[in-house]
Amino acid sequence: MSSLPRPKPLPPLTLILGGARSGKSRFAEGLALQAERPYYLATGQAWDTEMADRIKTHKAQRGPQWDNIEEPLALTDRLKALSVPEKPILVDCLTLWLTNLMMAEYDIAVERQRLLECLPDLPGPVLFVSNEVGFGIVPDNALARRFRDEAGRLHQALAARADSVYLLVAGIPMTVKSI
Amino acid sequence: MSSLPRPKPLPPLTLILGGARSGKSRFAEGLALQAERPYYLATGQAWDTEMADRIKTHKAQRGPQWDNIEEPLALTDRLKALSVPEKPILVDCLTLWLTNLMMAEYDIAVERQRLLECLPDLPGPVLFVSNEVGFGIVPDNALARRFRDEAGRLHQALAARADSVYLLVAGIPMTVKSI
Amino acid sequence: MSSLPRPKPLPPLTLILGGARSGKSRFAEGLALQAERPYYLATGQAWDTEMADRIKTHKAQRGPQWDNIEEPLALTDRLKALSVPEKPILVDCLTLWLTNLMMAEYDIAVERQRLLECLPDLPGPVLFVSNEVGFGIVPDNALARRFRDEAGRLHQALAARADSVYLLVAGIPMTVKSI
Repeated sequence: MSSLPRPKPLPPLTLILGGARSGKSRFAEGLALQAERPYYLATGQAWDTEMADRIKTHKAQRGPQWDNIEEPLALTDRLKALSVPEKPILVDCLTLWLTNLMMAEYDIAVERQRLLECLPDLPGPVLFVSNEVGFGIVPDNALARRFRDEAGRLHQALAARADSVYLLVAGIPMTVKSI
Repeated sequence: MSSLPRPKPLPPLTLILGGARSGKSRFAEGLALQAERPYYLATGQAWDTEMADRIKTHKAQRGPQWDNIEEPLALTDRLKALSVPEKPILVDCLTLWLTNLMMAEYDIAVERQRLLECLPDLPGPVLFVSNEVGFGIVPDNALARRFRDEAGRLHQALAARADSVYLLVAGIPMTVKSI
Repeated sequence: MSSLPRPKPLPPLTLILGGARSGKSRFAEGLALQAERPYYLATGQAWDTEMADRIKTHKAQRGPQWDNIEEPLALTDRLKALSVPEKPILVDCLTLWLTNLMMAEYDIAVERQRLLECLPDLPGPVLFVSNEVGFGIVPDNALARRFRDEAGRLHQALAARADSVYLLVAGIPMTVKSI
């Protein structure tokens, strides 16, 4: 995928949304691999064996051409510590980060604000992958409703700042916003 | 938002769909506020404190520049009673109206038909906000399945008659239909 | 609907996605009915009276101008047996087929591969209808999560091969991919 003919350089901020198994990670990886050895910042945490299997499969599938970072909670601190100029940073994914923050009872509004504020100072283009989770019936349990609300708020804030926003449908990117 | 440069006048019928926290109300408000003091017809009913909080927050956020109407059930009668010409009417939202009708055991097909029939005679442009709820797994309980079906039927009927249909994704309107 | 002025012939492979009550079947039917007496391959199986009612209603609504086939499981074998050239084949729908396969404990990866391999040899254009189910909160139960994953995988594989992919929203097709 690194040899794909893609003349356009990555914009500073890209948001890639999609449903379950919509191909959003693969699409994001293709964009990031236009550059040499991009960062892959994985937020997933293995709560159980099903999740551990997903993480392992993902890592194997994406191959060795990445600088891998795993960080379930301190996403903003990790981003701020990156210093190699022009190297793309792929964050996969925001919904898992939000889940981890909520499980650990962080103040989501504070963490969101910290993330938004660090974006203008990042050394290279950043791509956020996240699940679109708001198109179903209102969930029965309050935690799921709160999660849905927080995901929506974060997506809106990032999309407003993003240069490109995509919605993946069956592996195909629909352009929601472009520069 | 009332000073936004928007040369195009509102078409007679606009349908604004979106998921939870997708920015659909804010987008609809921006469109309606092109005119002076539009109607805001809120269908929400406070079943519990969570819902009461949402309604209060929404009202505070949208500010004082609206003629507010609250009507959980008799939406069509309220629309028919409006007589100020060219004043936009924002209905937020249809999914809450459907919920209220179902809880009160109205005949949804009859109410849908009544709504559709009143549309050509409204004095000003109308904008309907509604949740897109059909893109998840089939819900376990029969009431939720019926709700999903009724929402889909209503959206289809309105979209067929609408001049503009939008789907909000992360706060950004995707055009589904335009004149 | 067969008299709709549609100059373009159907491409070999069309994928039509949509949520519940989004009008995906009706849109697919309109496309297939450009030709005389297309095949209607229904995968639905009446597990309960609610499902039986849906199947009956659908069949009555679509009228007599179809060559009807009902096949809950052996979709690929049925497709391979078709031999009338240029006659469109509408498969409605893939999500029910997947459900039937999972209930009967088939190996989904094998069945998916068999379906994909038969496509280039079909005598006429084929249109697949399927539910987009991945845009909600992660379901509580493992079977629903697996179903969502399998639906996503199948949609991606078909979309990659398809000439046209549509996402139905409130009865209106959004073009995801076109030739």
